[in-house]
Amino acid sequence: MEDLLARLSLNQITLNKFSLKDCVEACVRNNVGWIGPWRNKVAETGLAESARIIRDSGLRVSGLCRGGYFPAPTAQLRAAQIADNLRAIDEAATLGTSTLVLVCGPAPDRDIDAARGMVADGVAAIVDHAHAAGIKLAIEPLHPMFAADRSVICLTDEALTLAQKFAADDVGLALDAFHIWWDATIYEKIRLSAGRIFAFHVSDWSVPLPGIFAGRSMMGSGVIELRRLRHAVEAAGYHGPIEVEIMNESIWNRPADDVMQEMKRTFAENV
Amino acid sequence: MEDLLARLSLNQITLNKFSLKDCVEACVRNNVGWIGPWRNKVAETGLAESARIIRDSGLRVSGLCRGGYFPAPTAQLRAAQIADNLRAIDEAATLGTSTLVLVCGPAPDRDIDAARGMVADGVAAIVDHAHAAGIKLAIEPLHPMFAADRSVICLTDEALTLAQKFAADDVGLALDAFHIWWDATIYEKIRLSAGRIFAFHVSDWSVPLPGIFAGRSMMGSGVIELRRLRHAVEAAGYHGPIEVEIMNESIWNRPADDVMQEMKRTFAENV
Repeated sequence: MEDLLARLSLNQITLNKFSLKDCVEACVRNNVGWIGPWRNKVAETGLAESARIIRDSGLRVSGLCRGGYFPAPTAQLRAAQIADNLRAIDEAATLGTSTLVLVCGPAPDRDIDAARGMVADGVAAIVDHAHAAGIKLAIEPLHPMFAADRSVICLTDEALTLAQKFAADDVGLALDAFHIWWDATIYEKIRLSAGRIFAFHVSDWSVPLPGIFAGRSMMGSGVIELRRLRHAVEAAGYHGPIEVEIMNESIWNRPADDVMQEMKRTFAENV
Repeated sequence: MEDLLARLSLNQITLNKFSLKDCVEACVRNNVGWIGPWRNKVAETGLAESARIIRDSGLRVSGLCRGGYFPAPTAQLRAAQIADNLRAIDEAATLGTSTLVLVCGPAPDRDIDAARGMVADGVAAIVDHAHAAGIKLAIEPLHPMFAADRSVICLTDEALTLAQKFAADDVGLALDAFHIWWDATIYEKIRLSAGRIFAFHVSDWSVPLPGIFAGRSMMGSGVIELRRLRHAVEAAGYHGPIEVEIMNESIWNRPADDVMQEMKRTFAENV
């Protein structure tokens, strides 16, 4: 169990009302060795200062959330998105992580197939820069309830097929239990993803769901077979950090140490 | 277009605050030729009286919502669910439809695979009675956001594989655009479902979603490629009634004729 807790990473959105510095200090106080920052919070603090805070803390960075959002209605806007992703790659490298999570974005209109093409084009446009910077691109298939507003890439096999257009060292998957647990063939799909899993995120799906975007709960309070999923991603070769990523208003309103303690306990018990 | 409007069916939940008699009269007044009743509303009116009201109106019944909910924690409770499904088959026959929609139900615990086995066992337990009664069982794959509380069957290919355990005349699919639109391979899955499509339902997915259960909108107000989906189910051999099934609080609060008129107009324009 100590080995498992050594892999626990705080995804920063779990403490969404706090600054990067607050989150880093909460990790240090609570003996959590990894953090997964978000770009908006890094920007608030400043990139160089964020990198310094993390470096000085001794924490390791499990991944940066997030690049992506490739589809856009015009070529000019798509180019702007690609430029932003190139900056995200540089930020990830500066922060000392090897993983950039890609939330691929929604379609700009009703043509979801065309948007999927824009995602593939977008990844192709940034992969060389990522490789040169030592950054792996982790495509995150999102739950289908986000297909209209966050990601046209929803299925794990769909994300894998996209990743397989590129070298296995460069483009793979970020698998989040909340997004994938319901899939009847998820364990087969995870097995087929061996060598391409770059990140594993956990939370839980409670009933009733507390929201759509802010719909996640602490591990053990919902229906997801978290341990089974962890064993599956391990059998597929992933032994890296495991981020706890929980969007939930009531958790956001609690003191940081309170959340950190519950996170550690429910992670150890359920993941 | 007249041919298409002749296929329009009012799924009763679109006018959820009204009785079966109110809904039948709204269809007649608005020249909608089909209705898809719900069992809870039929029970309020009484089965025999409901059948009489529909028969006297001249409406045809596109399908009955709904059987299913097979998984349960004990053999006794599963048997009770099967008994209820046998009653649902008899009710469908009495109401004069050939189609019973199956919403398969959630898992009673975290073991979603076991629950899927209970669904298969449940369908097997009722299929002979359905065949004898002239009722087709239409398994409805639900959107994955309902996997924890309404249906462990989420993917169209998963529902098809389940249906294919049985004769093609007895067990097939109810395809609802709201549940399936986001799937990257949905058109291939619809093609593979040829001969097994027993129902087609429409509504739309607007952004932001107005809710989870009550999250549906009028056709054309969201992102779903409804006409493309209709053409796909037609190419797969389905030319039956098309139910408009919209759970939405603001629509439920409007006058019936107002909803019926908007339903007809947006159906003609977008489906």
